[in-house]
Amino acid sequence: MLWFSLSRQSTKTLVQQIEEELRQKIFSGNLIEHQKLPSSRELASSLGVSRNTVNEAYEQLLLEGYIYQVPRSGTYVSQGLAFRKGLGSVPKLQEYKEELQQCQNVIDFKASHPSTEHFPRHTWGNLFKQVCMESEDRLFGYQSAKGAFALRKEIATYLERMRGVRADPRQIVITTGATQALSLLTRLLNKKGDLVCVEDPVTDEMRQIFSYADASIYPVQADQHGMRPELLPQTEKPRFVFTIPSHQFPLGVIMPVKRRIQLVEYARTNGTYIVEDDYDSEFIYEGTPVQSMQALDPDRVIYVGTFSKILVPSIRIGYMVLPFHLVEASENVKWFTDRHSSTLEQLTLAKFIEKGLFEKHIRRMKKVYAKRRKVLVAAIEEAFGEDRIIGQAAGMHLVVRFHERIDKDKLKENGVKAAFVEDFAIEKGLHQNELVLGYGGLDEDEIIEGVARLKRASEERS
Amino acid sequence: MLWFSLSRQSTKTLVQQIEEELRQKIFSGNLIEHQKLPSSRELASSLGVSRNTVNEAYEQLLLEGYIYQVPRSGTYVSQGLAFRKGLGSVPKLQEYKEELQQCQNVIDFKASHPSTEHFPRHTWGNLFKQVCMESEDRLFGYQSAKGAFALRKEIATYLERMRGVRADPRQIVITTGATQALSLLTRLLNKKGDLVCVEDPVTDEMRQIFSYADASIYPVQADQHGMRPELLPQTEKPRFVFTIPSHQFPLGVIMPVKRRIQLVEYARTNGTYIVEDDYDSEFIYEGTPVQSMQALDPDRVIYVGTFSKILVPSIRIGYMVLPFHLVEASENVKWFTDRHSSTLEQLTLAKFIEKGLFEKHIRRMKKVYAKRRKVLVAAIEEAFGEDRIIGQAAGMHLVVRFHERIDKDKLKENGVKAAFVEDFAIEKGLHQNELVLGYGGLDEDEIIEGVARLKRASEERS
Repeated sequence: MLWFSLSRQSTKTLVQQIEEELRQKIFSGNLIEHQKLPSSRELASSLGVSRNTVNEAYEQLLLEGYIYQVPRSGTYVSQGLAFRKGLGSVPKLQEYKEELQQCQNVIDFKASHPSTEHFPRHTWGNLFKQVCMESEDRLFGYQSAKGAFALRKEIATYLERMRGVRADPRQIVITTGATQALSLLTRLLNKKGDLVCVEDPVTDEMRQIFSYADASIYPVQADQHGMRPELLPQTEKPRFVFTIPSHQFPLGVIMPVKRRIQLVEYARTNGTYIVEDDYDSEFIYEGTPVQSMQALDPDRVIYVGTFSKILVPSIRIGYMVLPFHLVEASENVKWFTDRHSSTLEQLTLAKFIEKGLFEKHIRRMKKVYAKRRKVLVAAIEEAFGEDRIIGQAAGMHLVVRFHERIDKDKLKENGVKAAFVEDFAIEKGLHQNELVLGYGGLDEDEIIEGVARLKRASEERS
Repeated sequence: MLWFSLSRQSTKTLVQQIEEELRQKIFSGNLIEHQKLPSSRELASSLGVSRNTVNEAYEQLLLEGYIYQVPRSGTYVSQGLAFRKGLGSVPKLQEYKEELQQCQNVIDFKASHPSTEHFPRHTWGNLFKQVCMESEDRLFGYQSAKGAFALRKEIATYLERMRGVRADPRQIVITTGATQALSLLTRLLNKKGDLVCVEDPVTDEMRQIFSYADASIYPVQADQHGMRPELLPQTEKPRFVFTIPSHQFPLGVIMPVKRRIQLVEYARTNGTYIVEDDYDSEFIYEGTPVQSMQALDPDRVIYVGTFSKILVPSIRIGYMVLPFHLVEASENVKWFTDRHSSTLEQLTLAKFIEKGLFEKHIRRMKKVYAKRRKVLVAAIEEAFGEDRIIGQAAGMHLVVRFHERIDKDKLKENGVKAAFVEDFAIEKGLHQNELVLGYGGLDEDEIIEGVARLKRASEERS
C-alpha cells in the first residue's frame, strides 16, 4: 500500500499534497509504469481522508497524463515518465537577503541621480488614484505602442515651448526611460556591427547600451565645446551620431551652434542621423536653457528625453521624438519588444504636466540644485583654489580638474566616492585628475563634508 | 534696423521671442556672418522693450554660440551658421486626432484580452497611493535590474504554491510584460540567426517577438496534445524551444506529462532550453491547474509569466524564472535595455498579492470567465451542433471547428470578428474552418449576439 504523510497545517490543500506525492513517486521510479494504483477508496482510508479528496487528485493526474484509467479495472501509472537521469539540481537557498545596501558612511558624489526626497509623493499618489478611478475601461487594455496620447500631447507642447523641439504628438514614442529609447533606436537603425559615433569621454553604461544592441562604438573626442565634428569618420559611415549637446556628460560643456550645424551637415551628407540626448538641460543656472539641436533639422535629428532626472528614476518614463519616416518602424520595434510602457503612470504624468505641476517642480528643483551647486563650488574653491571647475553651470554634476594627484584608494580610505573622467575616456591620458562630482542626491552638509574628505584624500597623497 | 513683431499674449517670454527671431534670421541668411547687430539699447527701443530683456536674449545667444562680442566694438553674428541647403521639411499637422477607435458595432472575439471592467481600480489606486506615501526615499531612485525584491518574493511564494514552480526570488527578473521576457531571452540566448522552435500554430505576434530579437523560427507541429517532441530538429540545434504547455495558444490544449518529459530530455541531450509560457493557466474550469513544466527541470526550463491576463494589460508587469546560471546575464540584458521596470507599480502589485487580494481577484475572474465560457459553449452548440469545441476548458478563449465553411468577408459583413487558426499556422491546411473565439473581453449579451452573427455568416455562405 502507498504511504505518505499529509499535513493539515500545510498551506497546500490535501488534494495538492496527494498529487505531489504521487508525481514524485512516479518520477523517482517508486511507482513504475503500468503499475496499478490503489483504488480511491483504499487510498482514502489509508491516508485518513475522504474519497472525494483522492478522486480529485486522481482526476488532476489523469488530466496531466501521469496516470491512465482502464474501465472496470483500475488506475495505472502512465508509460515513459521516469527520467533517465535524476532531476536537475536546485540550490536550496534559505536566506532571502537582498544585495547589500551601500555603506551609509560613504559620501557618494554619484552623477545623474536626482534628489529623491523632493519628489511630490503626495500629489503623485493622488493623481495616480484619480487616473485609476476616472479612466475609461479601454485604457486598462493594450494601448498603442507609442504610449498614451494624452502624455504625448503634453510632451509635444512642453518641448516646443521650453526646448524649441519641433514635435507633433504623433512623432513621439514613449519608452521605459531614455535607456530604452537608445536601445530601440540602435536596434532600429543598425545592422549588427554597424558604427555608432559617441562622444569621448562617455560613460561605460552608455557604451554598453549601444553594444548590447549590437552596435560597434566609434569614439569622437570632445573638448570644451563638446564633440569635435571634424573627427567624425569620413570613409565608414556611422548609422547615427550620439551626442549630448546641451550638457555633455561627463564634461558638462555646451556645444555651440556652429558645431551643431556642422554635425547636421555631416548627417545630411552621409545619410546618417543625430541622436540628441537631452537628459538634464532643464536645470541651467546661468542664462536660459540652450535650444535643442533637433530644431535645426527634425528630419535628421532624433531627440531623446527622460523624466528620470527631473522627477525620479523609479518612474521610468522617457521618450523619443522621431522624424515622421521613422515613426512606424519605431512603433514596431517597441511593440515586439515590450508592447508599450505602463499606461496608468503615463496618464498620471500627463495630468501632472497639464496642471502645471511639472514646471512648478522644475522651478523648485532648480533652486535646490542651484543652491547645492553653489555650496559645492564654494567648498571646492576654498579647499583647492579657483578655476578648477569645467563646464557650464547646469545639471546635477560638475567636473573638477585638480592640480593635485587624486588617488582612488585614498578616496576610498577617506569615505568619499566620485568617478574619474579618465575612466570614462576611450582615448586615455587627456583627463588626468578630473573628477565628476554629482550633487543632485546630496544635501548641503553632505557636500561640505564630502569636499573635506576629498581634501584629506588629496593631502595624504602629496 | 532689425524689425520683428513681439507678442505679449504669447506663452513665450519676450526674451524667448527675441532669441528665436534672431536665430531664425541667422539661419535664413537675413543676418550674415560677422554682421554687426544693433546695440541692446537700439534694439530695445525699436522693439519697445526694456534693455535688460534684449541683454538677456543676447547673453543666451552668446552662450549658444550664435553671436560673439568684441569689447568696445559691439555684437556680431558668428561664422558658419547658415545652412547650405534649406531647413529640413516638417509636415505641418493641424489635427491631433488619434488613430481611429475600433468600430463600436463590431463584436470582436479577440483572444487574450481580459475583462477590463472587473479590474479593482479603487483598491489599486489606494494601494498605489499608500506605496507612494510609505516607501523609503531610495525606492524612488534606480533599483536592481531584477525589479523590486518585495514583488519577486511574493511571486516566488505564489508560484511555488499555485503552479509548482521551484523559484527563489533571486532567480526572478521582473519584465515589462511577458513580451519583454521573451524578447530579452531571445537576445540573451541566441546569436543572430540561431534557431528558436515554436509550436505551430502560433500567433504571428509571437513569431515577430522572436524575429525582432534576431532569431530564426523553426515550427514544430502541435496536435491535440500540444507540441510533438518527435518533430524537434535533430541536426541543427535550437537555442530554445518555446512552448505553452498548460494551454497552447491558439489550440487551447494541455501537454501531457509524457511529452513534457520528452521535451526536457531533448533539452538535456541537446544542451538547449525550454521556455515555458504560462500566460493564463490560473483560469482552468475543470480540475485544478496543471503543474508547471519548470518543476521537471529548473536548470533547463525557463518559466515566463505575466499579470496582463489575470489583472489588466496596461499594468505591463511580467517576469521570468531563470536557472541560477542565467540570472546575472539576464540582469545585464535588462539593465542595458531599459534598466528596470517602473518601481511603484511593482510595489503596488507586491502589496496586492501579499494582502491576498490577488488570489481573491483570480477566484472572482474565474467565475466571470467560466460563466462567459458556458454561455459561449451553449450558444455554439445550439447554433452549430455539439462536439465542435477543441481544447481544455481553460483560459479566455476556445477554438471551434466548424463543419460549415467560414468566410472572412462574410464575418466582416455581419459585424463579427474572430481569428482563424489557419492564419496562425505555419504549415497550412491542417486547421481549415477553425476559429479562435476569445470571450475574456465580451459580456454575455455580446457573446450571444456574436454567435448569432457567426451563424448568419455561415449560412449566407452555404
